[in-house]
Amino acid sequence: MNTQSEPRNLTVYRAAEKLRRGELTAEALATSCMERIQARDEELQAWVHVDVDGALKAARHLDREAREQRWHGPLHGIPVGIKDIIDVEGLETRGGTEAYPARIAEADAEAVDRLRKAGAVVLGKTVTTPLAYLDAPPTHNPWNLAHTPGGSSSGSAAAVADRMCMAALGTQTGGSVLRPAAFNGIVGFKPTYAGIPMAGIIPAAWQFDTLGTFTRRVEDAQLLWHVLRWERPVDWQATRNKLPPAAVPRAPSRVWRVRGFFEKEAEPEAVAALDEVLSRMAKHGVEIVEGPLPESFTGIHDAHIAILSSETAAFNLRAYERDASAFPPKLSMLIRDGLNVPAVRYVEARRQRLLFQAEIDALLAGVDVAAMPPAAGPAPRDLTTTGSASFNSPWSLCGVPTISIPVRLSEGGVPLGVQLIAREDHEEALLSVAGWLESLINFNQAPGE
Amino acid sequence: MNTQSEPRNLTVYRAAEKLRRGELTAEALATSCMERIQARDEELQAWVHVDVDGALKAARHLDREAREQRWHGPLHGIPVGIKDIIDVEGLETRGGTEAYPARIAEADAEAVDRLRKAGAVVLGKTVTTPLAYLDAPPTHNPWNLAHTPGGSSSGSAAAVADRMCMAALGTQTGGSVLRPAAFNGIVGFKPTYAGIPMAGIIPAAWQFDTLGTFTRRVEDAQLLWHVLRWERPVDWQATRNKLPPAAVPRAPSRVWRVRGFFEKEAEPEAVAALDEVLSRMAKHGVEIVEGPLPESFTGIHDAHIAILSSETAAFNLRAYERDASAFPPKLSMLIRDGLNVPAVRYVEARRQRLLFQAEIDALLAGVDVAAMPPAAGPAPRDLTTTGSASFNSPWSLCGVPTISIPVRLSEGGVPLGVQLIAREDHEEALLSVAGWLESLINFNQAPGE
Repeated sequence: MNTQSEPRNLTVYRAAEKLRRGELTAEALATSCMERIQARDEELQAWVHVDVDGALKAARHLDREAREQRWHGPLHGIPVGIKDIIDVEGLETRGGTEAYPARIAEADAEAVDRLRKAGAVVLGKTVTTPLAYLDAPPTHNPWNLAHTPGGSSSGSAAAVADRMCMAALGTQTGGSVLRPAAFNGIVGFKPTYAGIPMAGIIPAAWQFDTLGTFTRRVEDAQLLWHVLRWERPVDWQATRNKLPPAAVPRAPSRVWRVRGFFEKEAEPEAVAALDEVLSRMAKHGVEIVEGPLPESFTGIHDAHIAILSSETAAFNLRAYERDASAFPPKLSMLIRDGLNVPAVRYVEARRQRLLFQAEIDALLAGVDVAAMPPAAGPAPRDLTTTGSASFNSPWSLCGVPTISIPVRLSEGGVPLGVQLIAREDHEEALLSVAGWLESLINFNQAPGE
Repeated sequence: MNTQSEPRNLTVYRAAEKLRRGELTAEALATSCMERIQARDEELQAWVHVDVDGALKAARHLDREAREQRWHGPLHGIPVGIKDIIDVEGLETRGGTEAYPARIAEADAEAVDRLRKAGAVVLGKTVTTPLAYLDAPPTHNPWNLAHTPGGSSSGSAAAVADRMCMAALGTQTGGSVLRPAAFNGIVGFKPTYAGIPMAGIIPAAWQFDTLGTFTRRVEDAQLLWHVLRWERPVDWQATRNKLPPAAVPRAPSRVWRVRGFFEKEAEPEAVAALDEVLSRMAKHGVEIVEGPLPESFTGIHDAHIAILSSETAAFNLRAYERDASAFPPKLSMLIRDGLNVPAVRYVEARRQRLLFQAEIDALLAGVDVAAMPPAAGPAPRDLTTTGSASFNSPWSLCGVPTISIPVRLSEGGVPLGVQLIAREDHEEALLSVAGWLESLINFNQAPGE
């Protein structure tokens, strides 16, 4: 049962408004989400742990505060899920692996602390692939259980898509926010590298690891960004007592259609979805610039892997030497590859990144955003893979902000999206354009109905 | 002939004042320096190239401007030397090596541009060891030609000590500013990592490479820092028409005497010089705190070498593969070592650095400065070595500002100094304390008299 009247079907922004107006309680909202988890998670397997008691206690406390008009922040009463490589005080952090003993977090990760201070209710921990790499998780795609939800933030994406929570945190090192967002028909947003504090999160490759968000609407991503961003506006406290205004959607004047590698690798359905989006944009007066990738793109995936494998190997070296068998096959291979990377190669990969960053920045400076598919195609009908991060990892390496928004369902009935990319630190512009495009596309379907 | 009446014997600050008052011309000052070069450089070998025509032309132009009271900046008319890994427009950059073809620089390095905009006269390029590593240069120590001047900024240090120029630029990756400054009895100042722009300089290890200055007085280092620092005060332009006030020397309240490794490695004469300085400070009411190095110091020299060798190997890989025989023995060994460093080791060395930086910052937060010898002893009587960087490389790795000032001559007649270290970005405090200590020590000797 997933009737439209259930409060879990609201967006974050609408729910926050209703909570402010006393038309909804945090307890009712958390309960609505947890009922959905109860009904669906046995087959979906998006959650590692649901903290029913903790969530209800927090929700009731927030409701008491609300009755006295004491608002904690813009997320007052909003239930969220947290990827299980991110510490939540009092809950186990498992990181999807047996390679390390589960550990009860003594404090919230900085990002979780920010969500809570803004009034969010933490429902629990969502499934991550082992240490956020490519080994497949138990999670299914809520649109069709035979399809992967993508990874590595598999549980966060599936849970938000399935209305089990209103928003969730994930992390992206290759394509772990954008890809699962696209596969689950929701909005995945990754800001500029280091845009959100990373304290309290298990690292994969700290040159790339970036915290991102899953929501169902762009304005919700904007609200979370408002709360999570490293450099918060000085007037943040002012928003405790009223919601920040929803950002004004803004049509771009010029969009770079990224030709070359991504177009060649994309499946016809992904290209068709992009064509559809771009031609609608063009009809609204947007100039579409078709440009190739810069020279420094050549070999950029290898550079990403060289850095990723080296840093993953360095971080896990002792545990891997102690018991390699505790590491799943793909992660083991990554670590073994990393152990064989010479420092000179690592250093060169970082230098290539610098060049790529400079060339991409120059290209993005000439447009509002770049547009391309968020993945080669829709979620594969295969639970032994999470798909490929190759459409996202160059942007993770580059450190620029990206967002994926849903476009329509594929012939197989699973979602297709579009990925937008903006210059470093241009999150506001990216979100404004994404908000405008979202209204234009008007994707309004949900799984499991 | 090096009579006291020669203007080259003035400090930068005094010369700048005289130039402002019309008591000295830039041409006379440059000529005085070039006469010294003419007289002494055949045996000293501090210069790769002296740009007599360019320097005289620039000096005469500045003199014309001065007569019309048009001041370029605080260094108006001051002759300087530039280490030959730093680009000077129109002059060759050789980097002390045959491994690369000499190349005429098309533009000034950013730091040289800043010096020139502030009115400095570039006399020419000073000797660097090959690519700023440990292979010995042709340069001699002006205090005693049988001793090394140190390296890698050998020519810059020797030239300033020998009154061939008023100030010079060097770079430090291990100990290439502090060590030659100490060996030559002058002031060597290295700011925080990235404190001065590095554009236009051949890299060695870009995690550490830091531009520094050689002068004979602390207030001169302060004047150069004023001009060169990345983040210049907003009122910089105001100083075009008047000299910035000399910073007020300030006695520290608490100094950390660095015990442990450096004390064990130091020769008795270096320890005695430090003892002497610290006991004089104590008599002036300074509290001397004797504290050990932090735990993360263990292995820090190896971490420095792992990063240095990897980055040097990466930068020189193609040229080395093309013709290894063009690289001198120590640099060749460094590159070969670097080629064998695994990425995991490089990554771990960088992580150790982060820990060391945090622990050192906590220790330095409790004092005004740390004090220790700038090298294990005075300049070795050996022209096949430039001495060891081991007393400096941990601070280069750490990225904190350091300064060396002369204390007295050793029994062998070559200088001994003291090294002061401050927290990241605390250059002003470091220079104020160094200025105070310089007055207290009152070292007033010069070589070749």
